[in-house]
Order: sequence, then C-alpha cells, then structure tokens
Amino acid sequence: LLPFEFKIFDLKSADDVYFAIRNMVVRGAPLIGVTAAFGIYLALVNPGKSKLSNEYILEVAKKLESARPTAVNLKYAIKRQMNAIKSNGSPNEKAQIALKTAGEMLREEREYCRQIGLHGLALIEKLYNKKSKKTVNILTHCNAGWLACIDYGTATAPIYFAHDKGINVHVWVDETRPRNQGARLTTWELDHQGVPYTLITDNAGGYLMQQGLVDLVIVGSDRTALTGNVVNKIGTYLKALAANDNNVPFYVALPESSIDWQLQNKLNQVQIERRSAEEIMFVEGSHENKIKKIRICPENARIANFGFDVTPARLITGLITDRGICKAKKEDILKLFPEYS
Amino acid sequence: LLPFEFKIFDLKSADDVYFAIRNMVVRGAPLIGVTAAFGIYLALVNPGKSKLSNEYILEVAKKLESARPTAVNLKYAIKRQMNAIKSNGSPNEKAQIALKTAGEMLREEREYCRQIGLHGLALIEKLYNKKSKKTVNILTHCNAGWLACIDYGTATAPIYFAHDKGINVHVWVDETRPRNQGARLTTWELDHQGVPYTLITDNAGGYLMQQGLVDLVIVGSDRTALTGNVVNKIGTYLKALAANDNNVPFYVALPESSIDWQLQNKLNQVQIERRSAEEIMFVEGSHENKIKKIRICPENARIANFGFDVTPARLITGLITDRGICKAKKEDILKLFPEYS
Repeated sequence: LLPFEFKIFDLKSADDVYFAIRNMVVRGAPLIGVTAAFGIYLALVNPGKSKLSNEYILEVAKKLESARPTAVNLKYAIKRQMNAIKSNGSPNEKAQIALKTAGEMLREEREYCRQIGLHGLALIEKLYNKKSKKTVNILTHCNAGWLACIDYGTATAPIYFAHDKGINVHVWVDETRPRNQGARLTTWELDHQGVPYTLITDNAGGYLMQQGLVDLVIVGSDRTALTGNVVNKIGTYLKALAANDNNVPFYVALPESSIDWQLQNKLNQVQIERRSAEEIMFVEGSHENKIKKIRICPENARIANFGFDVTPARLITGLITDRGICKAKKEDILKLFPEYS
Repeated sequence: LLPFEFKIFDLKSADDVYFAIRNMVVRGAPLIGVTAAFGIYLALVNPGKSKLSNEYILEVAKKLESARPTAVNLKYAIKRQMNAIKSNGSPNEKAQIALKTAGEMLREEREYCRQIGLHGLALIEKLYNKKSKKTVNILTHCNAGWLACIDYGTATAPIYFAHDKGINVHVWVDETRPRNQGARLTTWELDHQGVPYTLITDNAGGYLMQQGLVDLVIVGSDRTALTGNVVNKIGTYLKALAANDNNVPFYVALPESSIDWQLQNKLNQVQIERRSAEEIMFVEGSHENKIKKIRICPENARIANFGFDVTPARLITGLITDRGICKAKKEDILKLFPEYS
C-alpha cells in the first residue's frame, strides 16, 4: 500500500505468512526468510484445522518455500528452522525452540545489515574525499532498504551510515517496473531517513552514467552464487552493463544469508520467477486519495513478466558483505567465509 | 489517447500544429517534421490574429522548431519549407508552394519507410532461413511504427514486410517508460497488422537476450550523427549494451531525413530533452472505460525525466536506411549518401 497508505498487517497463522510472502506484503530476500521462520512457529502454536503433526509442519514448510522461488534466504530459513525443531519434544517445546530460532535469525539479519552499512560506508567516504567533498551520487534499483530487511537495508545501509555521518549523498532511484518498488518504497524510505533522492525511469540510468552523473551503483541481491553471479530484480543486469561501459563502480550489498553456497556455475541454473501478466497490464497508484489500478495497454495484450535477471560476476566491482568487501569471485568470497570452503 | 480511445484531431492552424507536436498528439521524428511543414502552410493561409508578414512566418517557424528539441527532422523540415517560400510572391502563391513542399515531404517520408522495409526484410529473411524457418524474435523499443511516421514505420517496416511475406516473426515490445509508447502504441499497431507480440517491461530485454530469446533488435532513431551515434528514446542505449554483450544483432532503422549531417563527433553535443516530472509521477491508463491518471510515487517526490539517450556507434551492428544497410560509420554512411560528402 505504500507510499499511499501505511497499515500494520498482523500475521497470525502460517496461512497469513504464506499470503504475505506470496503477495509481497513482505518482500526482500532477508525479510521473507525471517518471516517464513516465524511462519513455522505460528504453524506450531496455531495448527489451524489440521491436527498438529510432523506431516502438517512439513507441509507448511513446503508451502512457505514455494511462495517465492528465487531468493535463497527463504529456503535457508525454512531449512534451519526445520532442523532446529526436528528432535523430539512436545509441541510446546518445539514452538519455543522455533520462536527462539526465528528471533535469532531476526537479530542476525539485522546485524548483517549493520555490518554491510559499516563496510559500505568506508567505500562512500573514500569517493567523497576523492570528489573533494562534493555530493556522491549513488544509483540503486528496486528496494533493498529496511523495508526489504529487518533494519538498515542491504543496498541502503551504506547510504544511511554515510548520511548520518554528514557525507553528502544523493540517490538516483530506479522506479523498478513492474511493481515500482523504487517509485513507491525506496522514495518513501529515503524520505523518512532524510536522504536526498531523485526518482528516474528504469531507462534513464545508462544516460546518467554517460553524463558522469553517477559515482557509484549499489544494488541488493536475491541470490548470489558462490561464483559471484548475482540474481536480483529484473533490470539489474542492464545497469551493471552501463556501469561497466562507463567505468562506474558497481557494488552488490548482501548478507551471507543470501549467498547460495551450492550454486557454482551456470547463469541459468536459478529458477527465475515468472509472475502474473496483471502486474504489467495494470499499474497501481493513487487517484483522489484512493488506491486504484489502471490498465496501461490493450485489454488483449500478450504479456511476459520475468521477476529477476542474472548479473554476471565479471560486471561486478565488488560484493559488500557483512564480513567485508570482496571481489565477486569464489576464492575471494571463501576468504571471507572460510567455513564454507 | 490510444489504445483506449481513437480520435481524429484536425490541425487547423499553426498554433494547433505547435500544440500537437509539443504535447505529442503527433510524435516520432518523421511525423513531426512533416507536420511542422504543414504548420508553415497553415500559418500562410490562416495567419490568426497577426497580419501575415515575413516576420510572422519566421516567428511561427521558430516556435514550431522549439516544440521538440531533439529530433533533427523538425529542424530540417522547417528549414526546407522556409527555403521553398523565401522568394517573393503573393501570400497565396507562397501558400501554394508551401502546400506542395509539405506534400512532397510527406510522399518522401512514406517512400523512405517503404525502402527501409525492403532492405530490412532481407535481413529478417536471412535470419529466418538460418533458424530453419523458426520464428524470428525481434525486440523493439518505444514506437517507431506508422504511428510515428507517415506509413510503414521505420523500425516496424521490415517487420511488416516480413510478416506480409509469410515469415514467422514475433516482437518483444518494451513498454517504454515514462510515456509507455510501447505498451500503448506499438502493441496497438502490431495488433492491427496481425503481428504476434509480447509486451515486456523495459527491464526485461537483457534477461531475454541472456536466454537466447531475441534474434534481432530493431529500433528507430530521433537523430543519427554522421559518425553513426544514435540519439533515440531513453533506454535504447541499455538495450544496445545488452545486445552487444549477448551477440544479438542491433540495428537502427532510419530515413535519411533523420541523419544530422552536421553532427560529427561528441556524444553530448545533442540537446537531450528534459521533460516534465509529471510524466513519471503520473501514469495514464484506463479505469472503468475512462482514461485516468494515477500517481505512482510520493506526492513530494523529486523527479528527473530525460527523453533520450545516445547509443554509441560501436554498439550498433548496422543502420537500415532507405538506401540500404550500412555500418554505423561516417565513411559507410557517405557511401550510401555521396551527395553529403
């Protein structure tokens, strides 16, 4: 509903959680992972019509995992939660364990983002000094802010830390069709943080880079392969190409929870979510203080809606992780995360 | 109003013509040039409040030229018309000359597009045979169809000729934010021609090319430098980068009237139109059979709206001109148009 309405939506059952993830009431890789973990907890305390059984919990886990196919956090969070509760115990004991585990994940994700912010801050500060303290212009795509995470955001965390430190930053916000997360969420979030921004169409980033109006690109990631390829919101790849063509540094900010340690090579190994044609056919917005949907193309238009694309590691200047900045390369990633070697 | 309403809007005065060009009732480089030429004629037969004088006509010419700054056709068309009527003669004689000149330009532009279609057809036919007569998938950006020209279109002419010849073609249509010419006009036009198409967001083209789902890109051009750089609708550059990165042939279809023979080198020598923030803030569409505008971002959002970008010649496989296909290079362009050497 943002930025037109602000509402609190309570999730009271695993079905609510499924609905919220599926319909993007919560969205963003870190947030949907943690929300799903709480979903398992809710299934344990509130089994709905079915009697509480291992089969039922397994079914809930499968359903939650299917709600969105691309982000790896969802898979990981559910796996971790299911491992935590797999030993025998009373339903009540299991529920307590699930609540504790979900809470741990929540705190971890928050801390990941804080760390990303600190590491990314150093990067922005360096550019700021290099520009003799002239405004650093940062382009971002979609929303990888606190609305997508627990707090701070991934791509936005370095920006918020820089802004809080008195560094002049300005953000170019891609509107991010078809769901307009940039136009609706990132603008709203930046405004709440007091960070200056300018909204642009997804088509404009290349031109801005040609004109020298972008100093840095920071985007989030829905899934990062161990080899450094990044699956993120559709259109990210185009911005990476433009950054590469204009020698603009292109960084991806991501918590370790969105690295897919199994994904080793091929670009097309990840299932790219195909979403409903209606997301493109209809645009949602505000008209006379009501949220309305209007049709922007012929009624009978054939439409294809791909949710993500893959940015090859070769186009990425670096990954800003919670453990530091590294090249988008397996050996460099594993230096920061040796336990996955 | 398309595709929601179809209306005929009569241009009865130079002011009407200015309004129509400025507000994109007519749009597309070839069409606005010819329309402006008729605008001078209308000023001669219907001088409005002012008495007909050379100063008045000059003023009209200047005003018409200022209606859109980027396309070179507008400048050329007005220059040609003004040259045609510059010799002495009665207002009536001048009006007759102006009508004749505008009519000549109209027929020329139409023939340019037909020739572009024939040359481009050969290209598509070759791909079709190479693919053992499997559907040729062509991506296009914005609308460079007959709605932007007098007839046939520029980028669409080869597609229409191929379709008419029984070659299976399918068009990926970029929606083309912020004005959605792809979603609104190209879809409507292709549908009227019976050509299969799929509407996508501007963000999706790169992904489709990564997946091998695009055989060819054809776009139009608002202004082509003699050196082969192409000024076209914002976002064209991003698609050229993606085509280049995936070895997809990237062609620009253009009549000689949109070549800027004076523009020799720098990418940023052309004035890139900055348009109103409202075009991004509000999206126009159909709601309960009425055309409505809805706001898609916060009310106080800061917005920048750039109309065009520049695709460097190095990313262009070839130019489809009315005299044949050539490389996007000065020497190759001049081989087709030796009179400009």
